Amino acid sequence: MSGAEHVPVAGTTSVRRSRDVPLLVERARAGDPRAVARLITLVENGDALLPAVAAALAPYAGQAQVVGLTGSPGVGKSTTTNELVRALRAQGHRVGVLAVDPSSPFTGGAILGDRVRMQDHATDPGVYIRSMSSRGHLGGLAAATPQAVRVLEGAGCDVVLVETVGVGQAEVEVASLADTTLVLLAPGMGDAIQAVKAGILEIADVFVINKADRDGVDATVRDIQGMIALGERGPGQWRPQVVRSVAARGEGIDDIAAAIDKHRGWLVEHGELRRRQEARAAAEIEAIALGTLRARIGSLRDGTELTTLATRVAEGTTDPYTAAEELLAQLAR
Amino acid sequence: MSGAEHVPVAGTTSVRRSRDVPLLVERARAGDPRAVARLITLVENGDALLPAVAAALAPYAGQAQVVGLTGSPGVGKSTTTNELVRALRAQGHRVGVLAVDPSSPFTGGAILGDRVRMQDHATDPGVYIRSMSSRGHLGGLAAATPQAVRVLEGAGCDVVLVETVGVGQAEVEVASLADTTLVLLAPGMGDAIQAVKAGILEIADVFVINKADRDGVDATVRDIQGMIALGERGPGQWRPQVVRSVAARGEGIDDIAAAIDKHRGWLVEHGELRRRQEARAAAEIEAIALGTLRARIGSLRDGTELTTLATRVAEGTTDPYTAAEELLAQLAR
Repeated sequence: MSGAEHVPVAGTTSVRRSRDVPLLVERARAGDPRAVARLITLVENGDALLPAVAAALAPYAGQAQVVGLTGSPGVGKSTTTNELVRALRAQGHRVGVLAVDPSSPFTGGAILGDRVRMQDHATDPGVYIRSMSSRGHLGGLAAATPQAVRVLEGAGCDVVLVETVGVGQAEVEVASLADTTLVLLAPGMGDAIQAVKAGILEIADVFVINKADRDGVDATVRDIQGMIALGERGPGQWRPQVVRSVAARGEGIDDIAAAIDKHRGWLVEHGELRRRQEARAAAEIEAIALGTLRARIGSLRDGTELTTLATRVAEGTTDPYTAAEELLAQLAR
Repeated sequence: MSGAEHVPVAGTTSVRRSRDVPLLVERARAGDPRAVARLITLVENGDALLPAVAAALAPYAGQAQVVGLTGSPGVGKSTTTNELVRALRAQGHRVGVLAVDPSSPFTGGAILGDRVRMQDHATDPGVYIRSMSSRGHLGGLAAATPQAVRVLEGAGCDVVLVETVGVGQAEVEVASLADTTLVLLAPGMGDAIQAVKAGILEIADVFVINKADRDGVDATVRDIQGMIALGERGPGQWRPQVVRSVAARGEGIDDIAAAIDKHRGWLVEHGELRRRQEARAAAEIEAIALGTLRARIGSLRDGTELTTLATRVAEGTTDPYTAAEELLAQLAR
């Protein structure tokens, strides 16, 4: 890689035809950050070239360790990611960071998409940092994220950190696609309850209690450990680790890295790594297939068929199930 | 209605065949709260009887005014809903309340589903209150919520309040299905920024600044009014109202009710009410159609086809787009 790619909003490399894609992928593999940026932009926009991109990247599948980070706003995800990148770089890893921002369904863009973040690594050629929304992507985050991971894998990153904003269902789904999932909490935020609600407990491999210099940290750790005990997955299952950190001061970062390594070792030892990679691939295939079907339905949205059906449902002369059946019949024609 | 239906977890009326559905709907129309509860449970569970339920309810479409309430946890949604119900009852309305809780994707249930809430109205026969999750519902919240609204419409409610927890994308979608959407904010919660992020600005017809006795309320009102000015929708468009309240003390509730009435009047005057009802019907039809397709794909999840494809993608011998195409071809067979 010739230089860090810092949150480019649009690629600068023009690629318009499928036959140009293999060259673009070759350039990304050779370390051209503009080629990497362009490929991720294609992913983000759900570009028509994506099938060609996916085909060109296929041989490099599974070469990166994918680490998910999630947690409520304000727990210190960006700071923790920043420090983790530093630690992984010190270990000699090439690191990709995807900050996934489920974009507004209405404004069509990620508010945080062009934020300037993690300036510390802006000049490090071994780090790619990219904020990404799923605007326009047919399969949503569930398809866009693994595809962006593939790009970074293809570009030679051996660790990819996927940071998701928030703890909603979409974020949980994205985080659950990682090999190792970190859930960040902070003392006194009522996060333990929120975590249960969002299904976070089930996906966390490592709980990071950040801002551990705050009051109430012991209670938070106790709550989490209680939840882990309640959700005990039985012998032969991974027991989620709990790590304390103060990321803003760089404290506990090595412990987080060690917990990730430990989980990685467990995955390999138990044949779970390949299982997770396959589960991720299955989710990606399903998301793409569903996105294709959604696009077919969406293509009817501006047509007279759906409008006519909706009018009939609104006036009470038919019901939505009958209308949906008619819509699907229309689709099959 | 013979009595308030207070958050029943499961219906007590056994209905197993399509031909029993018309009788159940008849009983709901006659005011039997157990019949209403049973119908909403069918909706919630995505029951196989739903097409029959939808057909029986179709003639009563569009008879209720649908008011959405959304906002971050802690802004006082339940309290505000409670007070609004009191005000609407005083005006002689029959009121239905749906507290929609996007359930955990993993635990399969709404944590808040059996909470005891709004005790004030538990003995009022003109009020139905129901917490609802979308567990098991194929079309998700986008389909389940309008269907539950149809049940309450059928049961004679002329106002249905739909309260959603949180401000994620799913909640935004649900709220946007209302005739009138209230977005609740509280001073000093950084909600203005969050509102923009979640696309709330675009869907709010009325902003309620609750807890308006707190410090910072003027700044919050100013922020929101600035955002409204920025997002000005042009002449002939509705300009979102901003109302202050202290719901816990019953203050400002009449102003909220007045703002709802004003918006209702505007909708009718501009022919927008029918347009919104049709948009809601279109979204419902699409969600049901998509749910059907998702179920067809899901039926392949445990089969060998998707597993085989996922293995090939994980090992790099094919790419996810090609795999998705093969999956869809399989589906069409």
